[in-house]
Amino acid sequence: MNKIAIYPGTFDPITYGHVDIIQRAAAIFDRVIVAVATNSQKRPLFTVAERMDMIRHVVGDIPHLEIDQIEGLLVDYAVERGAHAVIRGLRAVSDFEFELQMALVNRKLNEKLITVFLMPHEKYSYLNSSIVKELAQFGGNIECFVPKYVQEKIKEKMRNHERH
Amino acid sequence: MNKIAIYPGTFDPITYGHVDIIQRAAAIFDRVIVAVATNSQKRPLFTVAERMDMIRHVVGDIPHLEIDQIEGLLVDYAVERGAHAVIRGLRAVSDFEFELQMALVNRKLNEKLITVFLMPHEKYSYLNSSIVKELAQFGGNIECFVPKYVQEKIKEKMRNHERH
Amino acid sequence: MNKIAIYPGTFDPITYGHVDIIQRAAAIFDRVIVAVATNSQKRPLFTVAERMDMIRHVVGDIPHLEIDQIEGLLVDYAVERGAHAVIRGLRAVSDFEFELQMALVNRKLNEKLITVFLMPHEKYSYLNSSIVKELAQFGGNIECFVPKYVQEKIKEKMRNHERH
Amino acid sequence: MNKIAIYPGTFDPITYGHVDIIQRAAAIFDRVIVAVATNSQKRPLFTVAERMDMIRHVVGDIPHLEIDQIEGLLVDYAVERGAHAVIRGLRAVSDFEFELQMALVNRKLNEKLITVFLMPHEKYSYLNSSIVKELAQFGGNIECFVPKYVQEKIKEKMRNHERH
Amino acid sequence: MNKIAIYPGTFDPITYGHVDIIQRAAAIFDRVIVAVATNSQKRPLFTVAERMDMIRHVVGDIPHLEIDQIEGLLVDYAVERGAHAVIRGLRAVSDFEFELQMALVNRKLNEKLITVFLMPHEKYSYLNSSIVKELAQFGGNIECFVPKYVQEKIKEKMRNHERH
Amino acid sequence: MNKIAIYPGTFDPITYGHVDIIQRAAAIFDRVIVAVATNSQKRPLFTVAERMDMIRHVVGDIPHLEIDQIEGLLVDYAVERGAHAVIRGLRAVSDFEFELQMALVNRKLNEKLITVFLMPHEKYSYLNSSIVKELAQFGGNIECFVPKYVQEKIKEKMRNHERH
Repeated sequence: MNKIAIYPGTFDPITYGHVDIIQRAAAIFDRVIVAVATNSQKRPLFTVAERMDMIRHVVGDIPHLEIDQIEGLLVDYAVERGAHAVIRGLRAVSDFEFELQMALVNRKLNEKLITVFLMPHEKYSYLNSSIVKELAQFGGNIECFVPKYVQEKIKEKMRNHERH
Repeated sequence: MNKIAIYPGTFDPITYGHVDIIQRAAAIFDRVIVAVATNSQKRPLFTVAERMDMIRHVVGDIPHLEIDQIEGLLVDYAVERGAHAVIRGLRAVSDFEFELQMALVNRKLNEKLITVFLMPHEKYSYLNSSIVKELAQFGGNIECFVPKYVQEKIKEKMRNHERH
Repeated sequence: MNKIAIYPGTFDPITYGHVDIIQRAAAIFDRVIVAVATNSQKRPLFTVAERMDMIRHVVGDIPHLEIDQIEGLLVDYAVERGAHAVIRGLRAVSDFEFELQMALVNRKLNEKLITVFLMPHEKYSYLNSSIVKELAQFGGNIECFVPKYVQEKIKEKMRNHERH
Repeated sequence: MNKIAIYPGTFDPITYGHVDIIQRAAAIFDRVIVAVATNSQKRPLFTVAERMDMIRHVVGDIPHLEIDQIEGLLVDYAVERGAHAVIRGLRAVSDFEFELQMALVNRKLNEKLITVFLMPHEKYSYLNSSIVKELAQFGGNIECFVPKYVQEKIKEKMRNHERH
Repeated sequence: MNKIAIYPGTFDPITYGHVDIIQRAAAIFDRVIVAVATNSQKRPLFTVAERMDMIRHVVGDIPHLEIDQIEGLLVDYAVERGAHAVIRGLRAVSDFEFELQMALVNRKLNEKLITVFLMPHEKYSYLNSSIVKELAQFGGNIECFVPKYVQEKIKEKMRNHERH
Repeated sequence: MNKIAIYPGTFDPITYGHVDIIQRAAAIFDRVIVAVATNSQKRPLFTVAERMDMIRHVVGDIPHLEIDQIEGLLVDYAVERGAHAVIRGLRAVSDFEFELQMALVNRKLNEKLITVFLMPHEKYSYLNSSIVKELAQFGGNIECFVPKYVQEKIKEKMRNHERH
């Protein structure tokens, strides 16, 4: 049977850590849906369309991968898409507790939905989108953290912000 | 493509927490191999044959499940069996750190092997085989923790121990 | 001697997790004061009066329970009320560190005040008021998390918010 | 109503950290039973009688305190003694996880038994009986960690060990 | 060779916990630069000049200590100053994870920069600037937490805030 | 003034993780003493002389480094050697709590002794001597974890163990 997994997130922007998780998920599941959350409470730097565009540039060539957006509750979206699993990356203990909590809540809302935790390569264990944006803001070198295309988009965005 | 996962452990004995993880794994992978470690440093209460027998009684009816034993390194066994993933249960922060460490070591030994972490139902979050054995030793009620067949086997074992 | 305990919190709104802690506290202490913090930095969804009203509906029938509000420092309030202990719920490691910190600060301010930690039932281990509000916002089913009366009050509040 | 609490432990030997917890427990409960575990898996340095004797010397003058031994399961002992609560000290995150696990298991075995966590003074946050014994073995100064009477008993024991 | 260390932070305001770390750093390094971050995302209560002034009053007499401000990336500042190490205080597990992350990012940006973690005295293990400000706001006694000069500056600031 | 640091440990055997910490320590301190503990409770695979020999082969060319053994209490040895600091590596949260505890105990015994925590490169974050020995025992490839000389010594030792 075809096994479908959803990898939800804000992806503001996609980092090498996300790429690593997507590649692992694609090696296990028959179909992986990268689902960009549109209703993040943290004000994103990039629009949903921009975030989806960057994901497409970076991992668009992985077969059986789909890039989508998600508006309501993850559990409702998962049912709608016929997904068997939700993918989450685990880096640190603080991640672990929050992710555990979300997984338990989601299971309460839909007993059948299974949360699958994957670990990024240890060289990305400290990496998240906020750090990348903060570094970029102070002119730090972010080439170890995000693909070239994303680097350019961040620089563009920063230039526009300064102008205003 | 057929996706194969290995769920290694000591299973001394299998608990409802293990059952829960096996059921989740079976819902995601096309084939799940429950692999009983024969070389555990902790002196097990049950022989490998007894542990495999209990697993068979408890989850033997799950389709596409195989029960095996594993002697050498997990990564070698995984290659030999053509497995895509290793399943591990995550209950607590202390689990998390140890499991992370093992997953990183295994990845170092075989870059392609992916460790997949699943979370048991929160009602088994505190459960492990050692607690079950300790409770049984003092005559505690273990029916919430292990299936009936395992309860009986533990009682038998305890009776034999006392006799000697 | 009559032993008095204060259970301080924002209770925005009260959840089954809070109810569980209140019941345990009431089994140990001769008098329990549920003290609603009026000066929370997080902007509450409900007014202090509304929060106290929901608490009254949900646990008002527990004997020797009092529902009050607290404005200044917890240690001052505790002295004023002649309390022997402060009750706090412990769910996760992240809770633990914050609660430890607060307990140490409070002890520094009043050496006699004892913080007592209780653990909610594991089925509420992931539960807090923020998650309930977030779920409700996206139309999620919250009946496992809060009593019926609170569910209705949340729905009312959400409807009013949308109107404005 | 008279509220009874049990403070179980190995107390091999009692430290200032234990004394601190006992004093706090005695301020909250009408009766506190310090219950020395006789079946510890760790081989104790002192016999049960010696451990009870040291506890009596150190905290015997606290009113409404009882010193007892416990052989079987804590939950059975608690029922037998009519206890409302079990007291446990919480020092660190690693404590927290183990204690949480034990509290959940005990609650499963007896829903009515409430585990109450107390925090020792931060100056004892790092202290346990094993460290005291290890220090004593290498001639370290342990006067900050255990009362004078316990110091002497440890020295005696160490001298006897060396002789044999 | 002269060993130089930077101790970066917001210091809004300096507490006894910071003082403790500065004293330890000064015992190990030949020169310690206390570097006040000017671009903190949290809105500080005190201006950079006020924060530097308080640091000067409190630890200005420690030899080989310098008080400076830092605007851009820490790694750039460290290179500019010829520093061998960055000093960070470690109090709790939550500190630990964040600090680890920052240290790893900084090492990625400059392989030569070494982060050195020091532990404050356990009596300051729970202490941070936010707690001091929160206590002061509600009229709590903060004399155990900050030096007299800082107490006065906080009171002044609070009075001014109320007036506006 | 010459700053001296002690890096104590069992080093059974030295791994790339230890090497990494030694190199960082040597960049900060004027003199680093690698002190092999002779009284480890865990039964070491290698004798103290063998462990010191391996350390010498692996890091012996680092200037101002000394390799010694330590028998009694670390704090006594530190005073005897005129050391300013004790070096400890920090990898994970579980490390952190134990190390914190030891640092607090050591500080209690000698207020002047400062524990300095360094973080190994993230690629060694999961590495310790036990894992290396366990892998070697099952014929795993350990070349990423220990230098060539140590690999050979481990193989020799394992061959000898098998013969007996």
